[in-house]
Amino acid sequence: MTKPLKVALLGCGVVGSQIVRLLDEQADDLAARIGAPLELAGIAVRRPARHTDVPADLLTTDAASLVARDDVDVVVEVIGGIEPVRGLLLSALGSGKSVVSANKALLAEDGGVLHDAAAAAGVDLYYEAAVAGAIPLLRPLRESLAGDRITRVMGIVNGTTNFILSRMDSTGAGFDEALAEATALGYAEADPTADVDGYDAAAKAAILAGLAFHTRVTISDVHREGIGEVTAADMASASAMGCTIKALAICERVVGHDGVERVAVRTYPAMIPRSHPLAGVGDAFNAVFVEAEAAGSLMFYGRGAGGAPTASAVLGDLVAVARNRVSGSRGAGESVYADLPVQAMGDTVTSYHVALDVSDEPGVLAAAASAFAEHQVSIRTVRQEGRGDAATLVLVTHEAPDAALDATVRKLSGLPIVRRAASVMRVEGRSGE
Amino acid sequence: MTKPLKVALLGCGVVGSQIVRLLDEQADDLAARIGAPLELAGIAVRRPARHTDVPADLLTTDAASLVARDDVDVVVEVIGGIEPVRGLLLSALGSGKSVVSANKALLAEDGGVLHDAAAAAGVDLYYEAAVAGAIPLLRPLRESLAGDRITRVMGIVNGTTNFILSRMDSTGAGFDEALAEATALGYAEADPTADVDGYDAAAKAAILAGLAFHTRVTISDVHREGIGEVTAADMASASAMGCTIKALAICERVVGHDGVERVAVRTYPAMIPRSHPLAGVGDAFNAVFVEAEAAGSLMFYGRGAGGAPTASAVLGDLVAVARNRVSGSRGAGESVYADLPVQAMGDTVTSYHVALDVSDEPGVLAAAASAFAEHQVSIRTVRQEGRGDAATLVLVTHEAPDAALDATVRKLSGLPIVRRAASVMRVEGRSGE
Repeated sequence: MTKPLKVALLGCGVVGSQIVRLLDEQADDLAARIGAPLELAGIAVRRPARHTDVPADLLTTDAASLVARDDVDVVVEVIGGIEPVRGLLLSALGSGKSVVSANKALLAEDGGVLHDAAAAAGVDLYYEAAVAGAIPLLRPLRESLAGDRITRVMGIVNGTTNFILSRMDSTGAGFDEALAEATALGYAEADPTADVDGYDAAAKAAILAGLAFHTRVTISDVHREGIGEVTAADMASASAMGCTIKALAICERVVGHDGVERVAVRTYPAMIPRSHPLAGVGDAFNAVFVEAEAAGSLMFYGRGAGGAPTASAVLGDLVAVARNRVSGSRGAGESVYADLPVQAMGDTVTSYHVALDVSDEPGVLAAAASAFAEHQVSIRTVRQEGRGDAATLVLVTHEAPDAALDATVRKLSGLPIVRRAASVMRVEGRSGE
Repeated sequence: MTKPLKVALLGCGVVGSQIVRLLDEQADDLAARIGAPLELAGIAVRRPARHTDVPADLLTTDAASLVARDDVDVVVEVIGGIEPVRGLLLSALGSGKSVVSANKALLAEDGGVLHDAAAAAGVDLYYEAAVAGAIPLLRPLRESLAGDRITRVMGIVNGTTNFILSRMDSTGAGFDEALAEATALGYAEADPTADVDGYDAAAKAAILAGLAFHTRVTISDVHREGIGEVTAADMASASAMGCTIKALAICERVVGHDGVERVAVRTYPAMIPRSHPLAGVGDAFNAVFVEAEAAGSLMFYGRGAGGAPTASAVLGDLVAVARNRVSGSRGAGESVYADLPVQAMGDTVTSYHVALDVSDEPGVLAAAASAFAEHQVSIRTVRQEGRGDAATLVLVTHEAPDAALDATVRKLSGLPIVRRAASVMRVEGRSGE
């Protein structure tokens, strides 16, 4: 058997500690699968005293020196965030180390720089754990579907917001109440901004779109709306039309009126029919639909977060990277040859559900319908609920450019007959999926 | 760009003709992803006159000569069956060509010989399309979960039988009627034996078990029961207890009373609760649950057969294999270091649903309960339906060795109070999956 491959671990929190445990417990299996044993060279942490469950002699606060060590073969990063991680990983790659990372934020913001560094050094950069935790998703997109043409990726990629929306759906709770429950159960962090406002999902969408469409996509290319404004009334409105609300990441290959192929990437809460497979994904689970021309519809489902599931994905990458080092080869690098432009959200075609509190008087529907017609938005269904002061007009549109839908809603909100737009939300997942 | 990689295609039926189409339509994308264009060197078929849709000058009836050509880099095989394919692929591997195959029968019967030949020649042998068509499943098992410990793989891997059972469930039809419908719609072949009797699913189970447990498993290691004896009464009985019947392939890592770790592999129709995610997999779709210690439960869902979906999987492998040839490397080879023994079906722990037509007289339940007790089988639930001549006793057992359950049913069938065992079927997927 070959000499040990040395691994530097950056970060030892929820995920890192599971990696340390599994590296120890499964050492023989991992060695057999790789053809060489793995050996932890060191673990970089902020406060060594907190980590009493790992060998003290491995701990260091000096991540830069650990990364620079000549005897380190692979750097595994589970710290998260942009800096100082970007510098550490560039230094690792620059000195010929392969890198396994779970850092969605960094990869979505500046993945190109890391890929360039990996290519220049002829080493691997793997990051399966950055999206959808334990669910094998990036490797299938990058490798299994490499002979196909992916047209759409749509999924639930944030467990925290899925937990919150699932609770709102099942209990009728409002957003604040469901968030409080998620926090109490440890599903939401003390500062839930990254999840609730959609930054986490947007980063993952950027990574998925890049792999699916062979194009560099960054988080700034992603249209992002959080779930903070989803109300109990929205959820009730969804229920009334046989839908539920899910926070979706959607990556599409689209061809515009100008014949140019583009990538449209967005994340927002949307209504989907209860019959859609994603509607049944409860709790903090993740699930992702992939549509490809030849393969048809595929779905991947599993735990999107948590220490052990994320560690499983990291170790899968670590085995692949280590095998490559043993055999002196390198896995498939970044594939961005298609280099498609990104479509503006306003040009992206979606459909809207609009519930309007209206005066109960003749001509209300005619006035509303005129506002839609004015913006060339066609109405799919309309129904009126209640009478008098509580009258509500519920409309679902056909697909139209988002800008036209947005302008229609603004126009409607300004009509004298409309007291307020009670619920405005996009509808996804209709066409027989 | 590097010089073209030459591909020999063996077989040009439903899948092969889609491969030819996609190689042409996606030529530029494939070349960009591989770093070299792919070029069809020839297509071996039995009757060239039938293939008017592919370039005539590529067609040959002499597969052996095509495989032996010095200019061929990769052999793609979609003929199926054992011979003459085994000889052709061994010859291809032996002369340094990489092989992509969709041949589940050959891989399940003699995969080891092919893997040995690939290893000896230092070339790739990929076969994602052999199991679950377009669904990326083998690569996730082999690579994404390489850092984890898979404990169970359970899935619906045969679309034909899933279509038949789904129709029996939704329409109340008997087996013959549902099979006739499947045949009329093209879901079942003229001779449906391989599907109906479970040979197809057993071959796939062998391949899945081998990858999941790093052990050579062949189809002869798989306990196989077909769906030909599933009756409308069985389906009704399943429905009455909140279940449906699915043809399942199950691969488990088990530890016996002797402390020895073994692999248990089987395929049979079984009742599963309607709340189980596999219960909702209708039509000819496939879905596979994978349970791993760190990752938890994962599910993969999609089209398990058909020309284009299968071609997608073949082309994904072809891109990987071609990339490896361009870079002078080789993908992960066979991993069979664990070499676990196979558990006999009699020792495998399952649970049974048993419906007995019984005389309606005092002491029936006591007599039946004694038969279970005698074989140390514990009863989970029991209920009696009907009165007089139509009285039925429905029992569901706790888990017990299959041999004990089988002996119990034989004992019951011989009891004077039992007129017949109306339905005997295993129950799977209970424990909160």
